[in-house]
Amino acid sequence: MWVDNATDMLKISSPTLIVDQQKATANLQKMQLRAFKAGAELRPHFKTHQSGVVGQWFLEAGITKITVSSVSMASYFAMHGFSDITIAFPFNILEMDELKSLMQKVKINLIVSSLSTLEKINQCIEKEVDVFLKIDVGTHRSGIEANEKKVIQDFFHQAKKLSNINMVGILAHAGHTYHAKGAVEIQSIADECSTKLNDLKTMFSERQLLISWGDTPSCSMAEMTAYFDEWRPGNFIFYDVMQYHIGSCKLQDIAVAVACPVVEVHPSRNQLVIYGGAVHFAKEFISADNGFKLFGYVVRFTEKGWSEPLPGAWLASLSQEHGIVQLTSEQIEDFRIGDVIGILPIHSCLTVSALRDMRDLNNHAIPCMKS
Amino acid sequence: MWVDNATDMLKISSPTLIVDQQKATANLQKMQLRAFKAGAELRPHFKTHQSGVVGQWFLEAGITKITVSSVSMASYFAMHGFSDITIAFPFNILEMDELKSLMQKVKINLIVSSLSTLEKINQCIEKEVDVFLKIDVGTHRSGIEANEKKVIQDFFHQAKKLSNINMVGILAHAGHTYHAKGAVEIQSIADECSTKLNDLKTMFSERQLLISWGDTPSCSMAEMTAYFDEWRPGNFIFYDVMQYHIGSCKLQDIAVAVACPVVEVHPSRNQLVIYGGAVHFAKEFISADNGFKLFGYVVRFTEKGWSEPLPGAWLASLSQEHGIVQLTSEQIEDFRIGDVIGILPIHSCLTVSALRDMRDLNNHAIPCMKS
Repeated sequence: MWVDNATDMLKISSPTLIVDQQKATANLQKMQLRAFKAGAELRPHFKTHQSGVVGQWFLEAGITKITVSSVSMASYFAMHGFSDITIAFPFNILEMDELKSLMQKVKINLIVSSLSTLEKINQCIEKEVDVFLKIDVGTHRSGIEANEKKVIQDFFHQAKKLSNINMVGILAHAGHTYHAKGAVEIQSIADECSTKLNDLKTMFSERQLLISWGDTPSCSMAEMTAYFDEWRPGNFIFYDVMQYHIGSCKLQDIAVAVACPVVEVHPSRNQLVIYGGAVHFAKEFISADNGFKLFGYVVRFTEKGWSEPLPGAWLASLSQEHGIVQLTSEQIEDFRIGDVIGILPIHSCLTVSALRDMRDLNNHAIPCMKS
Repeated sequence: MWVDNATDMLKISSPTLIVDQQKATANLQKMQLRAFKAGAELRPHFKTHQSGVVGQWFLEAGITKITVSSVSMASYFAMHGFSDITIAFPFNILEMDELKSLMQKVKINLIVSSLSTLEKINQCIEKEVDVFLKIDVGTHRSGIEANEKKVIQDFFHQAKKLSNINMVGILAHAGHTYHAKGAVEIQSIADECSTKLNDLKTMFSERQLLISWGDTPSCSMAEMTAYFDEWRPGNFIFYDVMQYHIGSCKLQDIAVAVACPVVEVHPSRNQLVIYGGAVHFAKEFISADNGFKLFGYVVRFTEKGWSEPLPGAWLASLSQEHGIVQLTSEQIEDFRIGDVIGILPIHSCLTVSALRDMRDLNNHAIPCMKS
């Protein structure tokens, strides 16, 4: 049974992200094993948790090479024990000073898709840096399109002339897996992208390029033996409702729940008003089959974590600080003002970034980058 | 003309919210005048800016009574010169200790819609507190529905027995104005709600209830002379693209733009990749007439601020740290990697809360609550 008033356990009085360390480290172990079996090195993306404490769980699992999404995140994790960091964002030349300072402390790997950026980096830094060329495998967000072979060839050719630039590989993020659903569709994206990237690897075989690949859906579900040299999933450490809907995880694998005080109970419409809004969850939603927007699932805290989602209950809307939880008429009987309920978030990366106030099940703070 | 590389002016290297103080204070003056003419006291909502520095602009305009959306925000502004603060969120009984501590420093006004919460407050606090009953005027988010006159009567009757509770008024937020468009529709919501609230005021005339009213669309547009005793708009200080679409402001009134470095230029699809994503903007969007999602308008920084939005250009998508800007084929000629462009945000309240890194046009930091 759930804890009637979870504050007894959690001492929560405002929206707080609760992390189940056991689930998170189990997710990590599973991903390590999958990467190992597929012959890839796991270089997890730390944008999801942004926390030195969670980073420690990775260090304990033997992981020292990581991925981040900003120069400031690289600086943070350089101070938290990581010595080999890929900044998986098209390098921003306005942060050259920060890059130079970082490169004095740890090994930094950059991603670049423009020659002008590459030349600028070469000009400004004082020692060699490893660089991945960003390849667009179909997401059309950033990078050079995989079929632009002439452009890619030219890029490598020009890069060779730059004495501080060491082109070590090609890097892709199949962001379109987030719009896919189920193992079959994800597998087909992974297959197609592997073909594109390995074609490039073969085409430039004299360079012995690494292929770096990332995204939680494919790394969680697809069969990718010998496809890629490196995997960079991030979300898998916590997972979330979106990943559950894609098929990347089971509901029990979701390692975070936002604890929210109940501030109003409305039996007439079977709704709760909770303290927990867009500034805590961010405003990502899933369009559910019933046509409603789904901002999260509802759980109750137990002695050792939280329950399965309550069937037929969901977080139905968010304003700045308020959330509206829709329940059934039976469920609402069990809720009182002052209860603390849990919400499984839609997108854990954005929720961590919005909320920043994390604790483990033992009520210990889990500081993160900006908390 | 715009500044070719705004970093010369702004020294911006990562996403930063730029505030045009002149526009913001002009917005404030206009709102003060409108409230004055309507016979209402302005008690602005500070959830939009969450900043002591911006708060100072209000103090200089003679405003000392404010509204906030959380107990922690009340604590912050109690430390920044405000002595009369309404916490316009259904009071969360788990924050009783924080409330008691706050009440020793400044005058706090609460909103409540449940008798059990009211009784709990009465039990726990040591001196009288002013309380507003939250009335649901049609948004169906929180409060007692305006037509539940029996319930409201009972609430006031019971409240009278509680020695630490001083019921001073009724409070409503017509959140549904955010889904309305144009002055006529907004006016009709204001009219209808005024009738509902003034009916209640008359019904309980022996109590001399104040009517507290808030929302930027109606306070910006509607004719509300003698409708309400108090106005609590918040967003108006900055406005944003959503308010422009509703009709609350002109584009030139929008007082904030997010400065974002350009990291990739894609002439083949007339797109820029910018450093500026969901963790900076939050993920609110407008479904534009052309069927696309609109995450913001694009401006260029000038010597004294920023340009009008570039016609036909928009922020078209956001991932965690990336934004994709759609331009015309003529416009893209003018953009280079390393430029800093401006984005007028969809919802400034959420963008401030997500970004927290604010500066004025003179490059002075504007610290906010959690920065």
